[in-house]
Amino acid sequence: MNLVAERNAIIDEAQMANAIRALAMDAVEAAKSGHPGMPMGMADAATVLFNRFVKIDPAQPNWPDRDRFVLSAGHGSMLLYALHHLLGFQDMSMDQLRRFRQFGSRTAGHPEFGHAAGIETTTGPLGQGIATAVGMAVAERMLNARFGGELVDHRTYVIAGDGCLMEGISHEAIDFAGHLGLGRLIVLWDDNQITIDGPTSLSTSLDQKARFAAAGWHVLAVDGHDRDAVAKAIADAQAEPRPSLIACRTIIGFGAPNKQGTSATHGAPLGKEEVAAARETLGWTHPPFEVPEAIVQAWRAIGARGTRARTEWQERLARSPQREEFVAHLAPPDAARLHAALADHRRRMRDEKPKIATRKASELALEVVNATIPNMVGGSADLTGSNNTRTKGMRPVTRSDFTGNYIHYGVREHGMAAAMNGISLHGGLRPYGGTFLAFADYCRPAIRLSALMGRSVIYVMTHDSIGLGEDGPTHQPVEHLASLRAIPNLNVFRPADAVEAAEAWELALTAAKTPSVLCLSRQDLPTLRRGNDDENMTLRGAYLLRDPGENRDLTLIATGSEVAIAVEAADKLSADGLKVAIVSAPCFELFAAQEAGYRSAVLGEAPRIGVEAAVALGWAEWLGPRSAFIGMEGFGASAPAGDLYSHFGITAERVAAEGWRLARKPGEERK
Amino acid sequence: MNLVAERNAIIDEAQMANAIRALAMDAVEAAKSGHPGMPMGMADAATVLFNRFVKIDPAQPNWPDRDRFVLSAGHGSMLLYALHHLLGFQDMSMDQLRRFRQFGSRTAGHPEFGHAAGIETTTGPLGQGIATAVGMAVAERMLNARFGGELVDHRTYVIAGDGCLMEGISHEAIDFAGHLGLGRLIVLWDDNQITIDGPTSLSTSLDQKARFAAAGWHVLAVDGHDRDAVAKAIADAQAEPRPSLIACRTIIGFGAPNKQGTSATHGAPLGKEEVAAARETLGWTHPPFEVPEAIVQAWRAIGARGTRARTEWQERLARSPQREEFVAHLAPPDAARLHAALADHRRRMRDEKPKIATRKASELALEVVNATIPNMVGGSADLTGSNNTRTKGMRPVTRSDFTGNYIHYGVREHGMAAAMNGISLHGGLRPYGGTFLAFADYCRPAIRLSALMGRSVIYVMTHDSIGLGEDGPTHQPVEHLASLRAIPNLNVFRPADAVEAAEAWELALTAAKTPSVLCLSRQDLPTLRRGNDDENMTLRGAYLLRDPGENRDLTLIATGSEVAIAVEAADKLSADGLKVAIVSAPCFELFAAQEAGYRSAVLGEAPRIGVEAAVALGWAEWLGPRSAFIGMEGFGASAPAGDLYSHFGITAERVAAEGWRLARKPGEERK
Repeated sequence: MNLVAERNAIIDEAQMANAIRALAMDAVEAAKSGHPGMPMGMADAATVLFNRFVKIDPAQPNWPDRDRFVLSAGHGSMLLYALHHLLGFQDMSMDQLRRFRQFGSRTAGHPEFGHAAGIETTTGPLGQGIATAVGMAVAERMLNARFGGELVDHRTYVIAGDGCLMEGISHEAIDFAGHLGLGRLIVLWDDNQITIDGPTSLSTSLDQKARFAAAGWHVLAVDGHDRDAVAKAIADAQAEPRPSLIACRTIIGFGAPNKQGTSATHGAPLGKEEVAAARETLGWTHPPFEVPEAIVQAWRAIGARGTRARTEWQERLARSPQREEFVAHLAPPDAARLHAALADHRRRMRDEKPKIATRKASELALEVVNATIPNMVGGSADLTGSNNTRTKGMRPVTRSDFTGNYIHYGVREHGMAAAMNGISLHGGLRPYGGTFLAFADYCRPAIRLSALMGRSVIYVMTHDSIGLGEDGPTHQPVEHLASLRAIPNLNVFRPADAVEAAEAWELALTAAKTPSVLCLSRQDLPTLRRGNDDENMTLRGAYLLRDPGENRDLTLIATGSEVAIAVEAADKLSADGLKVAIVSAPCFELFAAQEAGYRSAVLGEAPRIGVEAAVALGWAEWLGPRSAFIGMEGFGASAPAGDLYSHFGITAERVAAEGWRLARKPGEERK
Repeated sequence: MNLVAERNAIIDEAQMANAIRALAMDAVEAAKSGHPGMPMGMADAATVLFNRFVKIDPAQPNWPDRDRFVLSAGHGSMLLYALHHLLGFQDMSMDQLRRFRQFGSRTAGHPEFGHAAGIETTTGPLGQGIATAVGMAVAERMLNARFGGELVDHRTYVIAGDGCLMEGISHEAIDFAGHLGLGRLIVLWDDNQITIDGPTSLSTSLDQKARFAAAGWHVLAVDGHDRDAVAKAIADAQAEPRPSLIACRTIIGFGAPNKQGTSATHGAPLGKEEVAAARETLGWTHPPFEVPEAIVQAWRAIGARGTRARTEWQERLARSPQREEFVAHLAPPDAARLHAALADHRRRMRDEKPKIATRKASELALEVVNATIPNMVGGSADLTGSNNTRTKGMRPVTRSDFTGNYIHYGVREHGMAAAMNGISLHGGLRPYGGTFLAFADYCRPAIRLSALMGRSVIYVMTHDSIGLGEDGPTHQPVEHLASLRAIPNLNVFRPADAVEAAEAWELALTAAKTPSVLCLSRQDLPTLRRGNDDENMTLRGAYLLRDPGENRDLTLIATGSEVAIAVEAADKLSADGLKVAIVSAPCFELFAAQEAGYRSAVLGEAPRIGVEAAVALGWAEWLGPRSAFIGMEGFGASAPAGDLYSHFGITAERVAAEGWRLARKPGEERK
C-alpha cells in the first residue's frame, strides 16, 4: 500500500503507457509479424501495476525477494520487452526492440526464459503462465513460512488473456490456487472480449468472474483504461487473503483508431497507415523507437524504488540468523553429500538385493534424498500411495500451514507440472511430483516447457508399462517412453532395479539444466546390479550389466522391468553355449552423450536384441542390421501383468529363441 | 417425463441397486483388483437413471436414436458392466462379470469402446468421458437440426467423479457445453468427497455447483441415495434448455459398513470379511454372481421399454422423406465419389503447380471434400484463419442454430479433440478440427483415445515446423512428428505439396478405424508431383518422387516442406554427376504397412539421407548404415523461417554436401 504513495508523479501515466503502445506497434511493424493488440490494450494496466506496485530492481533482476511478473498471454511479448526497456533492464536495449523476432535477439516472438533478464518464465502456449505463476506463489508462501517476512515477502502478478482462461490448465491452476488461498497471487485479466477467431462470444458464454469466485478467489472488475481504478483494485487485492482476479475491461489495440476492438489487431502488424493514425490518436508525436527522456526517467524511477527495497532486503539478509540456511536453499544441492548418502544406499541395496517395484525403490532412494536435501518439495496428482512420492515425516502444505514439504496437487497433472516449473523458477525449493506414466500426456505441454527452459524438475512416473496389469490400455503406456525421449533436453530414466533407481535420482537432482522423468514399475523386480563398484553406471546411460568378454555372440539391450527378462534369457542362452552380453540402458539420452568408443564397446559387434515393453520407435538407432526388437506393437490390454507379458510375447523364452536364431553360426545346433 | 410414469414398479429399486453393488464387489473380489467404491456409491442414482429415464434397447445397442450413457469415472467400470448384464445385453453374460479384468474378457479394467455392445466410449483417463459426451450432445443437436425430432431426439447422460471435474479438460468441456446450451446433456456428479489421496478437501475447495452455474449450466443438488430426489432432479433437468449438473451427494462404497465413505473403497477389493459384512448391511443374502430372477426381470423390463421406443422410431424412419439422407449420414463416405472428385482436384493441382503452403493446399482439398461429403463438421481451436479449416459456405454452429457445419471450439484443443471423438462415436457426422501442431501436446490424451478406439477423427495441424518462423520455439514443433508417430493406430501425414495434401485428405476420410493427423506447413511450397498418373501415392506412405533408374548413388528421403529441399539438393548432385533418388514419405505408418519388396525398392541400396525439420527419433529405421539425418537436434528459435532453416543447417547445400560425402566413390572428384 505504501508503494501507492510513492507513485511516480513526475509525468502522466498516460504518456508512460503510450510509450509501451508505440514501442509495441513499431516493433511489430519492423518485424513484419507479432501481436500489437494485447500490449496496446493492457498498456494502461501494466503501467499502473509497475509504476505503483511492482517491486523489482532492474540492476539485480534475480534478487530473490523481488515480485514476480508473468505475462501469461505471451504473444503480447512486446508489452514485456517494452516494459523491460523502459524500466532500464541493461540487456534490453532499444536495439533489441528494433530486432524483435529476429535471429539471436533477446526479443523472441514469445518471452523465453533465459533470453533476457527478468523474463520469469517462458510463455506463449496459453494457460502455462498463470499455472506456472501459481507455483511461484506457492514457493513464496513456503519460503515465507520457513524464513519469515523479513526475507521472503513478495507477490506474483500475472497478466492473462481470454485464451489463457479458456485452456483447461487454467481450471487446474485456479482451483489449486483458491484451495491454498494464495493471497499473494494477483491476476490481471485482459478482458478484451476478442480471440483470434473474433469476439469471445463465438465460443464462450462463461461468467469468468463467477468462475473465479467459485474457486475461492477474490474478484474485482474495472475499466482497464481507468488507471486509478486499476490501482485501487490492485491495492484491494494486495490487502486480500485470497488470490485475486482483476477483470480489466480493455480495448484490444487501444489507440489504433480503425482497428482497435477487433481481432485484426491481435496477431498482425497494424500497417503503416494505421500506425500513423494511432500516433495521431494517442498524441504520440515521436519517431519510431524513440521515447522522450522525461518519460524514460519516469519509468526509470520505478527501478530506483526497487533498488532501495533490494538494498534494504540485503541488509536484512546480512543480519538474519537464517542467512546461511536461506543461501543454501537457493543453491544447487550439495552434490558430494548427496552422492555419499546415495552411494551408501546403493551399497545397501546391492547387499540386500530386494525384490521390489522400482516405484518402491524410488521411494527408498527418496527417503535418503529427502533426509539429505533440505528443500525438496514432493507431491503427486492424487496418486501418492501409488507413486510412492511421500517419504517418512513429510507434511502436507495447507492453506493454513505452509511449513510442510508435500503437496497434494489433486487430480491435476497439468497444473502440477506447471506449478513445479513455477516452484523451480522461483528458486529456493526443489520440486518433484508423481503421476502414472500414461498420464504424462496430460502434462506434456508443461514437461516440454521444463525442457525448453532448462529447469531440472523431476517427474516421478510410475506404472510404466503393461506391467501395471488390470487397469488396461488406457493406463498402460506403450508410446510414452518414445514420445518423452523425443523431447529435447529431457532425461528419460527407466531404472531396472533398486540400484539404478537410486542412481537415477542422483542424476536427476544434480542435472543443472535438464528435467528428468523417472519411469518406474508397478511390479516387483529383482536387484540385478552386482559387484562392489560404487560408480554410478546410470550416468553412462547404458552399460554392460553382464560382460561375457571377447567374442560375444549376442547383445541383449533392455530397460527397466525388461532387464530382468534379458537376464533370464541370457541365462538360457549361456546354458546353450552362447556368449551373451546384457546391456542395461536406463537413459538413452545420457548414453547418446557418451564417447563413440564407449558406445561401441557397450553395443559390441554381435547381433543385438532390444527388449522394452513399449513401441519400437527410436530403437533402430541402437540396434544394428542383424537385430530384433521385442516389445509392443500396439496398445495393451486389461489382464494380470504376467498374462500380458506372455500374450505380447515379452518373455525370456521368446528373447532366447530370437537370440538363438540371430546368434547361431551356420551348422551349429542348440545344446 | 412420461417415462417416469412408466417406471418399473414390480420391485423396489433398492434391490435393483443392491444387485449392482453385489456384482461390483464380487467381481472386484474375484479379480483381486478394481474399484468397488464408485459403483456401490452411485448404484442408487444409476438405477433410477436407467429404470426411469434412459432410452436404450439392449437388443439393438447401436440404434441411432438411443440415449447415450457415458461413465466418465471409468474406474467404476463394474457399474457399467453390472448395468449391462442386468439390462440384458447379450454379450454381457455373468461369466463376463466373473472374468472381470482377465485377459480376453469384455470386462476390461476400464470400459473399452468396442469390447462390448453399449460401451459408448472408452473412459478411464479422467475427464475424457464428460468431454466426449459433450461432442455426442453436439452431434445430437446438429442431427436434430437436420432431421428433426422424429428421427433424432435423445439425451446424453454422464456419470462423472471428482477426478473428472478436477481435470482441466472438464473446464473446456463445461464452458463449451454451456456456451452451446446443450440442454440434452445431463451430468450426474458422484459427489462423494473422496479421491485416492483421501478427502477432496486435501486438494480442492471449489464450489463445484457455482462453477457449473458460471458456465451457464442448470445446477441441482440431491442426496444421491434418495432415489425419488434423484428422479425428480433428472426430470427437472430434462425440462431444462441448459445442460444440467446434478450433484449427487453419495457415500463411496455405500453398504460396506467399515470402509464406506473412505478412500479405502476406491481402488482395491473390499476383502472377504468386508464383503460379507456389506451383504449383511445391504440385506443381500444371495451368493456371489447370483441375482434373484425377480430382480433380473425388473431390470429387463427397462430394455423392453426401450425396444418399444426403438420399434416406433424404426417405423418413423421408414415413413420419413429424409430416410435416405439419414441413412447416408450414418454410412461411411462414398469413397468412389470422393476419389473421383479429389483425383480431379489433384490433376488440377499438377497442372497449375501452385506454390502454396500445405495448409492452403489442405483448404483447397477440403473445398472439394466438403462439397462432396454432406456430413463433414469442421472446426478449429480458435485458429480458423491459420488452420485454413473453414471452407466457403460453411456456417457456424450456435446455440440458437445447429444447422451449421463449423464449430468455433475456442482456445480449447483438448476439449475439441474429445468433442470430435464424441461426434465420431455418436455417428452421423465426420469431424475434423484444427490447431497448431505444437499444441498437439494439449490434446494428446484425446488423440490417443481416437487411436485406441479406432475412430477416424481428423486432426488438421498446421505450422508444422520451424518453418512457422517468428513465433519461436514454444510454437515450433520439433518432437511432435516423432511423438505422434509413436502412438499406435494413428496415421501421421506430412504432405509435401498440394497433390499429397489432397491424397492425405482422401486417405484420412476413407480410413475405417484409424485417426489421422495432417501436419501442414505455414510456408509456401512448390508443387512437386509430376506425371499424369492418378494413383494416390500417399497411400504407399513413401514413394519415389524422382527415380534415377538403376545404379543409384544416393537416396534422399524427406517429408513435407523438406521434400523441396531434397529436390533442390538432388538437382545440385545430379549436376555433379550423381544418380540421386528422391523419396517423398508423407506417411511412415502406411509405408511400414507396404510389402517388404516395395519398401526395399523405394529405399534402395545406396547411401541414404533423411531430411526432416524435426528430431531424428524414429528415422534410424529408414536409414541404413551409410546414412545421415539432417534435421533438428533441439528446440527452434524465433526468427524469419528462412533464417532458421539456414541456422539449423536444413538446406539444399548441406544435404548436397552430405550426399557428396556419402555417395562419392573413392578417388572421384566433384564436378
